[in-house]
Formats: sequence, structure tokens, C-alpha cells
Amino acid sequence: MLHAVIMSGGSGTRFWPQSRRNRPKQLQPLAGETSLLQQTVARLQELVPPERTWVITNAGQAEETRNQLPTIPVQQILTEPCGRNTAPCVGLAAWHLLATDPDAVMLVLPADHLINPPDAFRQGVRTAVELVDNDSRRLVLFGVTPTRPATGYGYIQRGESLPGAGHGYQVTAFHEKPDRSTAGSYIAAGDRYWNCGIFTWRADQILDALAQHEPDIASVLETIGRTVGTPDYDTSLQDTFDSIPARSIDHAVLERSPDTCLVEASFAWHDVGSWHALAEILGTDSDGNTLQGPVTVVDSNNCVVRSNGDHLVGAVGVENLVIVHTDDATLVAHRDDEEGLRRLVERIQEQGRDDRL
Amino acid sequence: MLHAVIMSGGSGTRFWPQSRRNRPKQLQPLAGETSLLQQTVARLQELVPPERTWVITNAGQAEETRNQLPTIPVQQILTEPCGRNTAPCVGLAAWHLLATDPDAVMLVLPADHLINPPDAFRQGVRTAVELVDNDSRRLVLFGVTPTRPATGYGYIQRGESLPGAGHGYQVTAFHEKPDRSTAGSYIAAGDRYWNCGIFTWRADQILDALAQHEPDIASVLETIGRTVGTPDYDTSLQDTFDSIPARSIDHAVLERSPDTCLVEASFAWHDVGSWHALAEILGTDSDGNTLQGPVTVVDSNNCVVRSNGDHLVGAVGVENLVIVHTDDATLVAHRDDEEGLRRLVERIQEQGRDDRL
Repeated sequence: MLHAVIMSGGSGTRFWPQSRRNRPKQLQPLAGETSLLQQTVARLQELVPPERTWVITNAGQAEETRNQLPTIPVQQILTEPCGRNTAPCVGLAAWHLLATDPDAVMLVLPADHLINPPDAFRQGVRTAVELVDNDSRRLVLFGVTPTRPATGYGYIQRGESLPGAGHGYQVTAFHEKPDRSTAGSYIAAGDRYWNCGIFTWRADQILDALAQHEPDIASVLETIGRTVGTPDYDTSLQDTFDSIPARSIDHAVLERSPDTCLVEASFAWHDVGSWHALAEILGTDSDGNTLQGPVTVVDSNNCVVRSNGDHLVGAVGVENLVIVHTDDATLVAHRDDEEGLRRLVERIQEQGRDDRL
Repeated sequence: MLHAVIMSGGSGTRFWPQSRRNRPKQLQPLAGETSLLQQTVARLQELVPPERTWVITNAGQAEETRNQLPTIPVQQILTEPCGRNTAPCVGLAAWHLLATDPDAVMLVLPADHLINPPDAFRQGVRTAVELVDNDSRRLVLFGVTPTRPATGYGYIQRGESLPGAGHGYQVTAFHEKPDRSTAGSYIAAGDRYWNCGIFTWRADQILDALAQHEPDIASVLETIGRTVGTPDYDTSLQDTFDSIPARSIDHAVLERSPDTCLVEASFAWHDVGSWHALAEILGTDSDGNTLQGPVTVVDSNNCVVRSNGDHLVGAVGVENLVIVHTDDATLVAHRDDEEGLRRLVERIQEQGRDDRL
């Protein structure tokens, strides 16, 4: 049976003050009425029911996650004691799935990405599942056709086409984040895809692959995994999870395995990396502005202006700004200065204003 | 006896969103812990007691004015039915003063100016009162020595020095707001002063002068004035005040009277015309920023950033901005775009958000 495993424990400062430590990006309604996590769950409709949907988060975000996803059984909202990158996360989820379904197929996906249209996403998942059904060893990545020479993503190079209804390919190479000109050559080549961090595989196969390529990771996961469903689980998890080497599932397994293949994703995909990027996704008015909430602007261009609730934000004669008002904190920033935003958050912490972070 | 008459009915948009229709600039703590009006009253200490201090405002601001000035007897907080510039305002106040004190000397002053040090102000008032005591016809203006070639003020040209302890002079000419080069020549001439809108004269003399130069204004004021202290006053005021021609006391009387003279003001004076001007008054840090309240900035220069209460405002990588947060509205504006701010306020009104104005 197909299960969805949503990785939702991330944190960051790029959407401060909208995002907070215990309510990061994926728990925020950045684009639309519901949070990115809720949109990710909604996208699974007709594909994976709530009783086979799993979320992996951390202790600080667990309560809000449960509140946002009332249809997901609480025992399927798993918490990591600490973040150890995606390989331990995926392995832990695999052990949980196998405890209830020895033939579980996992659709692994991040909680904080925007994907449209949902139908194209679901079609891609069906193709991936078909590839796994046809060969149980396969580890399937979703490859997004690049629309610009992005330098912030890893690229996957496709090889031979795989038999079947959808667009499946062998994978011949992984490429780290490229510089601008290299990214341009990738686009020109036409056989490279963005690695969007969405995967499909059998739970038993990913654990086998981990055991083969990362025995240190696999052995600790097995110790924890054998306690799933027993009273010893919490203690086992708390005592050992932080000893697992932090490694991505890409580096740990996918780049090394001959069974890695890809499905060409025919959907628009965004990882929503910054306020600026969000504006590009949401679109702009004729002045280049993206306005959300009770906002009034005059003589202003290329700004993202957002207000929550009923607070009125007015902008006059400004450009290239991000202006975000929340109940207890407001940001005014040059929209390209992501490094500055990180330092602002540090400064606020140094000032003892952790309550606003 | 010396009475103070504080003209406090002004309104404007230049300090939105801090200032509001019923709580304009003079009722706001723009510079310091108390409002500009409260600072104006405090400046009168040792000079004019509360029982001889009068405030002229309008109906919308009356309640807040009374709340801010609990020591001023409520019957001395007068309300104009509508604004008719300063000549009717001064004349109305003169009638009230004469009803209790036939020898009243009026110190007329705006509510929304910053003056320092207060002692120098009080010394100037004593000089003005001495000039009036020595010649009851005198109409005394306060002339501020220009510190820069300002184009936003009217200038007064001094003539012969007057006998007495302080720096009193005849007035030979009034000059409208000059262009930049003319203003420069005024500074070079050394005999011009900014007209700061502070005056001293006998109440009976200013009414005589109004009767001589502006009989239309004087006759309506007399109709109202004769009802002061009677049950007919309110009706008389409401029925006739708006028929008075709107005219400044400068144009109506001072520019025409041979009795106009000036006291050289030896205090620093600011009319606090904009957020930008306020920053110059309050001073800036080494980055050129003026920060008030819980504000944190990174890589930002020449900004005025102000937050009320406990709301945190963060700024990153911005310059030449005014950022003002209040409970229900926030402004982000280029600090030189005062015209844009006016249009923003118009836009907000068009959008039916009068509750924020």
C-alpha cells in the first residue's frame, strides 16, 4: 500500500517574522488560506488517505502540527528528538510503516514546497509507484524540468528511458549546486532536472539500501525500529537518535545506488526560499508589488507588503522592500538581503527578545 | 495680568499614523514622554499659572485635550466650531480674557512647536511683556534668528532697536516664504528673523486693531464676545463663527499695523514639520538613524524607526526610510516624500478606512 511521509521538522529565519521557531515556514499560510503543510496534505487527496499519511516533525512543532492536521491519527505524527538530516528521518519512518504494512511503499515529500497543479503531482506519483511495482528495488526521485539556470538546487542527469506509461528514466549522475554558467549549460543540455526532494520507494528497500551504504545509520535505526509499538520506543528514540550521523538520503543512498531512477515531474514546483521568491510565485501587480492583507501603497515598486488581521500597512515612495507585519513584530527589509535578515534575527536573540523568534 | 493662549486646533497628515484626526501632532508624544501640547503648557511654568492658561481647540480634539491637561480649568479650554485661521481664533480668545480681566495681556503660542531651553523662552516672554507694559499699543512678535536658509517660513525684517532690557526692535517689513537664494540673502543680511507664530499683546489692543483693519472679522467676534459668560454663548458661537473670513493674524493686523514690533528669540525653535525634521531634532546615531522604542536595525542608514509599546520592529538593509508602527497602522515611507504621504492618507480615506485616519 502507498503511504505518504511528510518531512516537516525544518526551521529557519528566512520568513521571520511570519515564521517562528515553533511555527516555521511549513506551518504558515504563506501562499493561500492554509499552511504549506496543510496544502501538502490536501495535495494527497485521492492518492493517500489520512490513515496512511505520516508526518515527521520535532517536539517544538508537534502540538501545532497536530492542531493543523486533525484528520491525521496522532500516532502517525512522529517526532524526531533532533534533526539529523533526511537519511535518519526516512529510515525512522520506514520502520514505522513496516510495523503496520510489510509491503509499504513510501512517498516521501517535504512539507514546505508549492506544487501546481495537484493533478500533475498525483500523476507523477502514480508513475513512480508503477516503476516501484514493476521493480521492487527501484528508488525513484522526482525530477523537475528546470525553468531557469538556478544555482540553488542540485541537478540530476537522466539516462535511458524506462519502460512504462509515464516518463521514467535511469539516473546517470548527480550534480551539486552549480555556478551560473554551469547551470546554463545544464539547461541547454536538456537532460538535467532539479532534485526536488520528493521520493518513492518500498520501505523495506530503502532500509536495505541504508544497511548496505550506511551501516552506522542503519544499525541505530534498527535498534529504534525494533521497539516501534512497544513501551520501550520513546526511551530508545531519545537515547540513540542523536548518535546517528546527520546525512541526506541523497548522499547516503541515492547517489550510490544502481537502483536510483527518476520520474520527470510535469508540475510547477517551488521551494519558497525567501519572501522575494514568494512574490514571484504569488505574482505581482502592474507596479511589481505583491500585496497581501490590508495594505495601501503609493508610488512604490517591486515590494512585498503583507499584513495580518486588521492592521493597516501603508507604504509611500519605496522600492525593493519586504514589509511584513505580524501581531508582535514587523520587518522592513531590502528584499535581496537574506544574509542581513539572518543577522537581524541573531541580533534580536542577543538582545534577549527570544520571545519574538 | 499675563494670560497664555495656546492655539491647539490644528490637524494634518504629516505624522500619520502616529497622529490621527482627533489626536493630531500636538496631542502626541513625538519628542519626549509627554505630548507637544503638554510640553507647551509645562514651558509656561513660573510664567503663567493654569488659572490664566487658555487652550483653543476644536470639538473633535476637546476631550483628549482636557484629559491631557487636568490642571487647566475646563472652561478655559475653548472650542472653535471650525477652523478660520488665527485672526478669529486670537480675537475669540481676547473676548474671553477681557470678560475676566480688562487689563489682560495675551501670550499667544502654537501648541505644536519645540522650544529649548525653556528659560530662554520665558526670558523672551518677559521682554515682550515689558515692551507692552511700556507702550500698551504694541503688538509683539517673536523673531527666531535663522540657522539655515529655510524656504518654509515667513521672515520678519527688523528696524530700530527699542529701549528696554531685552532685544526689542521695530519691524520694517514682512517677507513671504522665500526661494532658496533669497533665503540665503536674508541670512547674509543679518536683520531677518523667522516668524514663529508666538505673539504678545494686550487683549483690548488686538481687538482694537482687528476693528480697524478687519471690521468684518471684528464685528462677528463682537457679537460672539458680548455673549461670553451668558447662556447665549454656545448658540452665538455656533451660528456665526463660520461666517468669519478665514485670515491669519499676521495678514489681518500685524503686517498693516505701525505698532508691530519684535523680540529677538534667543531659544532654539522647531515647528516639527515632518518625521524627517523630527529626526534632526531628536538626533541620530552613528548610522544616521533615529530609533525610538523596541527597534532593531541591521545595515540601515538615515532612517527614523519608531515603535509603540512592545511591538518589535526590525529593519534590514534599508536607508532614508520613515518606519512608524502604531497599534492599528504602520507606515513605511521614503523620508522625503511628504506629498506621497498626503496621497496615501487620501487613498486610505477613499478605501473607507477612515477609522485609521
